[in-house]
Amino acid sequence: MEVIGSASHEKAGLICRGWWWFKALVVGVATKTMKLGRDDPRRVIHALKVGLALSFVSLFYYFRPLYNGFGDATMWAVLTVVVVFEYTVGATLGKGLNRGLATLLAGALGVGAHHLATLSGEKGEPMVLSIFVFILAAAATFSRFFPGIKARYDYGVVIFILTFSLVSVSGYHADKILHLARQRLSTILMGGCVCMIISIFICPVWAGQDLHNLIALNMEKLADFLEGFGGEYFESDHGDEKSASDGSKSDKSFLQGYKSVLNSKATEESLANFARWEPCHGFFRFFHPWDQYLKVGSLIRQCSYRIEALSDCINSDIQAPLEFKKEIQGACIKMSSESGKALRELASGVRTMTQKGSIDIHIANSKNATNDLNSILKSTLPKNADLLQIMPAATASALLVEIIKCIEEIAESVNELGRSTKFKIVDPTLTALEKQQPQTLLHRGIVNPVDTDCPHIFIEVDGPSDLSPPGNVNSKVPGGGASSTSN
Amino acid sequence: MEVIGSASHEKAGLICRGWWWFKALVVGVATKTMKLGRDDPRRVIHALKVGLALSFVSLFYYFRPLYNGFGDATMWAVLTVVVVFEYTVGATLGKGLNRGLATLLAGALGVGAHHLATLSGEKGEPMVLSIFVFILAAAATFSRFFPGIKARYDYGVVIFILTFSLVSVSGYHADKILHLARQRLSTILMGGCVCMIISIFICPVWAGQDLHNLIALNMEKLADFLEGFGGEYFESDHGDEKSASDGSKSDKSFLQGYKSVLNSKATEESLANFARWEPCHGFFRFFHPWDQYLKVGSLIRQCSYRIEALSDCINSDIQAPLEFKKEIQGACIKMSSESGKALRELASGVRTMTQKGSIDIHIANSKNATNDLNSILKSTLPKNADLLQIMPAATASALLVEIIKCIEEIAESVNELGRSTKFKIVDPTLTALEKQQPQTLLHRGIVNPVDTDCPHIFIEVDGPSDLSPPGNVNSKVPGGGASSTSN
Repeated sequence: MEVIGSASHEKAGLICRGWWWFKALVVGVATKTMKLGRDDPRRVIHALKVGLALSFVSLFYYFRPLYNGFGDATMWAVLTVVVVFEYTVGATLGKGLNRGLATLLAGALGVGAHHLATLSGEKGEPMVLSIFVFILAAAATFSRFFPGIKARYDYGVVIFILTFSLVSVSGYHADKILHLARQRLSTILMGGCVCMIISIFICPVWAGQDLHNLIALNMEKLADFLEGFGGEYFESDHGDEKSASDGSKSDKSFLQGYKSVLNSKATEESLANFARWEPCHGFFRFFHPWDQYLKVGSLIRQCSYRIEALSDCINSDIQAPLEFKKEIQGACIKMSSESGKALRELASGVRTMTQKGSIDIHIANSKNATNDLNSILKSTLPKNADLLQIMPAATASALLVEIIKCIEEIAESVNELGRSTKFKIVDPTLTALEKQQPQTLLHRGIVNPVDTDCPHIFIEVDGPSDLSPPGNVNSKVPGGGASSTSN
Repeated sequence: MEVIGSASHEKAGLICRGWWWFKALVVGVATKTMKLGRDDPRRVIHALKVGLALSFVSLFYYFRPLYNGFGDATMWAVLTVVVVFEYTVGATLGKGLNRGLATLLAGALGVGAHHLATLSGEKGEPMVLSIFVFILAAAATFSRFFPGIKARYDYGVVIFILTFSLVSVSGYHADKILHLARQRLSTILMGGCVCMIISIFICPVWAGQDLHNLIALNMEKLADFLEGFGGEYFESDHGDEKSASDGSKSDKSFLQGYKSVLNSKATEESLANFARWEPCHGFFRFFHPWDQYLKVGSLIRQCSYRIEALSDCINSDIQAPLEFKKEIQGACIKMSSESGKALRELASGVRTMTQKGSIDIHIANSKNATNDLNSILKSTLPKNADLLQIMPAATASALLVEIIKCIEEIAESVNELGRSTKFKIVDPTLTALEKQQPQTLLHRGIVNPVDTDCPHIFIEVDGPSDLSPPGNVNSKVPGGGASSTSN
């Protein structure tokens, strides 16, 4: 009795555990699914679109006149939808066009090869066809190693090999090879059209738009770091509003966000490759300069490498003496936050497709801060401190200087993008002034401070028509202060 | 006459130009092809292997008994070869197994769905089947967004959707659905087997081996930079042999090589994903710790980001005063070259699957050099020079310190890899001694200098059994020199 009791008890325990595992699995999958869907609801829509396209194409089977016309070739419509329908419009169009053109070309070549092979008699035919297949397949496979072909025509080459082999070889038995080829081509065309129409007209996901947003997002991530870095490194209670709002991010995720930028190359390149297939949509033309986006993306990555090195300084064991840190803190925080602001403005400019003059002002400010730092470093040699202790802070400053150089290059590259895609030019001083001293807009034309953090730098505004380019901002130093040098 | 003459002249010019363009195109393509083939001859072999597999499978069409058995389903063997045959064994196996299993599962589900649908009458059948296809296709498509599924089972999911749709829908007309499914499965199996056999037994390209080599190569690229950096930055005629041999690389390509490491993440991850499908081969077992390779790869990338920041120092506008440079040059060159040597030894250890003690010696040397540098920085405050001028050199030193930390982490991670995959342990001092003073091998057991560059650091060798771990190297300072501190 006891044995039976313990056995049934064990069994119940096993079932209970099994049920628990199953429940945990279901809950885990459900949570992940919800998260994936919430992160980007377009994923759910894409899944539904694929379901719709397939259900629609499978109706061809039930629609008698259509099925009688195409017979088993209807299958190629289903096959086309499954393999061609991709997440972005560009990828779908690229695959669809690759498939269509490769099928046409390979079909024609296959018919030709089959015709040539028949000339060599019934015995020689399989041999000749095998040689043809070998040569074409080997050559086409090798061509997939060319980077240019790999990036844009890889799928087309696969379909080329497939179709050529099928048409040339199966033709050996099918006398009505042309009829078969026409049937297949029509169904592939139908499947492809269904994909393209659903992809473009139902909640389209444009690769170009995604690339555009990714570039802006990456700049924002770097800006998050730079705007927060000063406060984090100097652990100051530096009282400007921006720092205070950054300080509220107690989770410090802003110090980690830039890490995804380090490895963004593959994503950017594939999005650019897809975007090239996309037709005009919204702001984007057919020959939109996607290469310029890649250039900007590459410069952003360059900047992120320096930021990665800079992040070491936060966690360094050796910290500079407080006295020295205090000396350079103002200039360094300004360099960091102004370069962050410049990046944020650049990102917002890309997002709204405008060219903002305020970017140049922020860059000029950060360069002025660099000059301030240089003056401090030239004049002040800290007492009671050795070079070893000063080194980490000096390294941070040096890296900030390099980062500012990178941001200048990014700004230049974004400007080039703006020129070639005709970004709207925004009044160069308006934005900066709006942000900082809204009341001054009431009486423009007088001398207004550009920057509230650094009140001794002034800009002369003589009305919109006389505005000097931001690069040539006239800096005036009231009271003959030596620490501010115009750029 | 003149008009006719000029027209024919123009025509000849046009033909001549056309011919010239055609020749340039052919030469260009031929050159690129040669280069691709020369860079990695396995590409040519892969192309020939695909050609062979396809020719072989297409013979099924001509072989009467086989063709009569399978009919048009023979086509699926060709299709399988074209889409499954990939460059590496792992990718081919992964795709083949994905295809096979997905076809089985989806085939069974498709037959079930078709059976269920028939229960709802002739009118309801298409409706029910469409709903099934919609739900399955949408769910499976959404599952492709899960990173785990995307990495390893993406192709399987595509084939699952395809097969389910084809079987459930085409079953509407084919009464002999089971017969058809068996035919297709057999031909897919045949195609898949042909791919796998040719892929594994004719000049196999193992993704695991490639990942293994890539990790070693990336370390070597960083080592190239670090070994060359000291000489390049200080432009010294520092007379050790290594620097001289580096100096001979006048093309300075060693300063650029590391750049490919910055973006190696995608390649490493895809190789690791493929490698997981590969069976035992050579040193690699089925459950080889590929994740550990990814960890090492990630640490190498971390190091490359610091090197990217370091490379700025070479091109910096501000150069430290010669006097100060000379002060720190010895220690910095040592830090850089010893860390480079450590990386090179690590790479060679990975390549030959051995754990070398000499790595720890090089790391200890580079840390000793760091201590030397620290002593210099503590004691020497340069005269007639401000902090601004010193900053770039100080930054370079600080970055070198971070790089040495990175290399320590890499060494630890490689050691962990070595432990889990049972790398052969090499006598920790033998390698270093062999390289530096072969004659001392004749009378081991006496005090021998470890390092020819820095002759005042000694290691006591009391025979192999008494060797203290390299981390605890006993440093002796002959002549009471103050600049060498034991680590």
